[in-house]
Amino acid sequence: MAFQKIKREDDYSKWYNNLVVNADLAEHSAVRGCMVIKPYGYAIWEKMQQQLDKRFKETGHSNAYFPLFVPKSLFEAEEKNAEGFAKECAVVTHYRLKSDPNNPGKLIVDPDAKLEEELIVRPTSEAIIWSTYKNWIQSYRDLPLLINQWANVVRWEMRTRLFLRTAEFLWQEGHTAHSTRQEAIEEAERMLDVYAEFAETFLAIPVIRGVKTPNERFAGADETYTIEGMMQDGKALQMGTSHFLGQNFAKAFEVKFATKEGTQEYVWATSWGVSTRLMGALIMAHSDDEGLVLPPTIAPIQVVIIPIYKGLEELETISQKVKPLQEALKKLGISVKYDDRDTQRSGWKFAEYELKGVPVRIAIGPRDLQNNTVEIARRDTKEKMNVSMDGLTETIQSLLEDIQNTIYSKAKAYQQNNIHVVNTWAEFEATLEKGGFVSAHWDGTPETEEKIKDETKATIRCIPLDNNLEEGVCILSGKASKQRVLFARAY
Amino acid sequence: MAFQKIKREDDYSKWYNNLVVNADLAEHSAVRGCMVIKPYGYAIWEKMQQQLDKRFKETGHSNAYFPLFVPKSLFEAEEKNAEGFAKECAVVTHYRLKSDPNNPGKLIVDPDAKLEEELIVRPTSEAIIWSTYKNWIQSYRDLPLLINQWANVVRWEMRTRLFLRTAEFLWQEGHTAHSTRQEAIEEAERMLDVYAEFAETFLAIPVIRGVKTPNERFAGADETYTIEGMMQDGKALQMGTSHFLGQNFAKAFEVKFATKEGTQEYVWATSWGVSTRLMGALIMAHSDDEGLVLPPTIAPIQVVIIPIYKGLEELETISQKVKPLQEALKKLGISVKYDDRDTQRSGWKFAEYELKGVPVRIAIGPRDLQNNTVEIARRDTKEKMNVSMDGLTETIQSLLEDIQNTIYSKAKAYQQNNIHVVNTWAEFEATLEKGGFVSAHWDGTPETEEKIKDETKATIRCIPLDNNLEEGVCILSGKASKQRVLFARAY
Repeated sequence: MAFQKIKREDDYSKWYNNLVVNADLAEHSAVRGCMVIKPYGYAIWEKMQQQLDKRFKETGHSNAYFPLFVPKSLFEAEEKNAEGFAKECAVVTHYRLKSDPNNPGKLIVDPDAKLEEELIVRPTSEAIIWSTYKNWIQSYRDLPLLINQWANVVRWEMRTRLFLRTAEFLWQEGHTAHSTRQEAIEEAERMLDVYAEFAETFLAIPVIRGVKTPNERFAGADETYTIEGMMQDGKALQMGTSHFLGQNFAKAFEVKFATKEGTQEYVWATSWGVSTRLMGALIMAHSDDEGLVLPPTIAPIQVVIIPIYKGLEELETISQKVKPLQEALKKLGISVKYDDRDTQRSGWKFAEYELKGVPVRIAIGPRDLQNNTVEIARRDTKEKMNVSMDGLTETIQSLLEDIQNTIYSKAKAYQQNNIHVVNTWAEFEATLEKGGFVSAHWDGTPETEEKIKDETKATIRCIPLDNNLEEGVCILSGKASKQRVLFARAY
Repeated sequence: MAFQKIKREDDYSKWYNNLVVNADLAEHSAVRGCMVIKPYGYAIWEKMQQQLDKRFKETGHSNAYFPLFVPKSLFEAEEKNAEGFAKECAVVTHYRLKSDPNNPGKLIVDPDAKLEEELIVRPTSEAIIWSTYKNWIQSYRDLPLLINQWANVVRWEMRTRLFLRTAEFLWQEGHTAHSTRQEAIEEAERMLDVYAEFAETFLAIPVIRGVKTPNERFAGADETYTIEGMMQDGKALQMGTSHFLGQNFAKAFEVKFATKEGTQEYVWATSWGVSTRLMGALIMAHSDDEGLVLPPTIAPIQVVIIPIYKGLEELETISQKVKPLQEALKKLGISVKYDDRDTQRSGWKFAEYELKGVPVRIAIGPRDLQNNTVEIARRDTKEKMNVSMDGLTETIQSLLEDIQNTIYSKAKAYQQNNIHVVNTWAEFEATLEKGGFVSAHWDGTPETEEKIKDETKATIRCIPLDNNLEEGVCILSGKASKQRVLFARAY
């Protein structure tokens, strides 16, 4: 194939960019910082969407759709939130173009079509949604309100990377309203659990659940819950967040409800989201120097069958053997592709499906026909085996399960081997260089957190939910600390 | 219920707006011309999406995603297309806000963050997509390219109506590339057929397939195919269009391919789309003065079961009878809701589900328990019947089919009774006042078409695909005509 192969150990970042493009997942567009998600990449995103959507509905949420634009006056209502996003907002100021009098065939912005109030392209939808909820919520009977939205959002990032950080990205954002503080916190935690379960069972990526420090919280939140994944270079990737918003947005938009007792109270809120960033996590957690490694659950093609033949007559004989196999696999809900294109050699096809991460490859040649066998190659371990045609569908079904488990176990072992407990600043610095997460004591102040970030580029990824309380001293300040937190360099 | 009931015959337009809001489908937002699609409305849209997406995939298309923004220089490349949309473009000119020095807590657009090149919020994606296809297409082997996108688009309309005409709307847009003119025309026609089949079997709305006159074509198309539905007030609603784009975009973006013979040729294109406008069509085609009438295929709740009881003990007895019924219906893939809320009276519930268009309502009271019966009411004809509990699931299943057919047949009869053949200008004007479509001779000139529109507000909806050639004279100019075309006032 006509592309440069890059090894992870040589340049992890370049390896990633190359893989995204070469595996036909996404590419840069003509618009600064915006990507095109190509059909193969989008097919993976669709599978993520289906699984998440199912889980949201099972936990009682409904989908809805709110406007792309947020009038500036609404955007600035919740001050912390507005301040947090102000520097990365795309702003619509005009609603019409007109012919350029000096350049025939060209257009200019029509200065007469200036908006009275500028519109912000949503970087997140709390403002527009809470200005709407104000009319939907009058009484405790209207609560809880459990809504999710699938949408595009825009954050004008200066440095962008395909899937990981793009000016426009696709995501879902849940926005819920509750009558009590406790219920809202439970919702935020429930949705974090949904994300974690999805990441682990479906993407085969082990995650650590925790809360962010105040410094790292979502702008406008009282608490931000996070799931953090570990990539193969040891860096952290925040895979999803769930926010307890307190009454901040209810107060900004005056959303009150009548309680059973007849009093008026501000509504409690959560919001939670995952985005196309998960595509980046999926790629970086499992793939290797030959290309993508996709867990079977998420692979658009789970099994590819490639005929090895000389001449179209031999191909025809193989195809007749393949058809019932293909049908039998489809009946089991396994997505299978038979690549009988005569325009490409089998070696080219092998490399292509390796690059695309197809979990199971079956090759069938004339000798296999004689022996009633096929050659199976699994993408994750690259093992090959000759197996009988008899009971082949069951063989493949259990192989797919095994691949899913193996990919997860490998990532889990890597994660566990790369969480390092350190107690001194020297250890901390040295360990960070090796990569992975570092569990260390911190004095709990934003100042120390900032200093550590400035000196090492490491941030506090989270305070794990299952943390043990443990007396200690801060690695930097030497002040007293009550628990360890997880540091890492992050995407 | 606390809303004003409006009859179709009194004010059709007001009836529509009220129904959309009262049935919880959508509402106006804080952003001029943009709507909020509420959970019940979005659930219907999701069902449309699923069905359409399935059909697109069955006809060989893949989904992908292209940027929301189109740089102005790309937008203006295909001149006719650009000219067609220039007057309704939302334009992003800045990428940052900053604190307003004169108003603490408020934000202003940062004048230092002006974009070098303005970005148009896509009104349609031909420009951004064909600028991308340029890199994807080199040879005949890369063709056909069959891609669809689900997205939001923005067209700055001055007069908006929920679902029918909104500044932002949701849609799908297919964009395909082909090596021959013939293949592209076949694709455009195939997708029109997909839309027509979907409209008729799934939305139960009969449509007329035709081509638009040059005047009414999509900006940048060589031919626009359309499906036209007839609403209950006799007006036409364009429900979907499919465009043969010739080589217009290939030429604007220099997209050529190497043929098998080694020559270089411009690529042939189509695009096709349907939008949340279909929600408007669905509402206006079938609903009545009591509320929505939803064909069972599209109804988020197909069957609602309402207990009629005095006291919680009686409710409990009924609930025990309902549970196995509910399970049995679910197993058949029928979506069923048991509304046992004790906070609302049964009369309130009856009106509520009537308003929401639930096709089948089952009421069960103590006398039903004694008699082993239930009361079934169908939403479309409002008929009620007492039926036995025995074989109830089969009764309901065939009732749902019958409702689907009845709704379609009613709409079909209405459509057929309201296509009027006229031969003179006087007849034409008089018939238009009665409503419906008018089949009349037209001399084929854009001038006559414009005059008719100016004088009567009727436009040529289409030249039906199955049209008979027939000599005649134009109703306005008296000039020779070779076929009749369909006129109507339209949404």
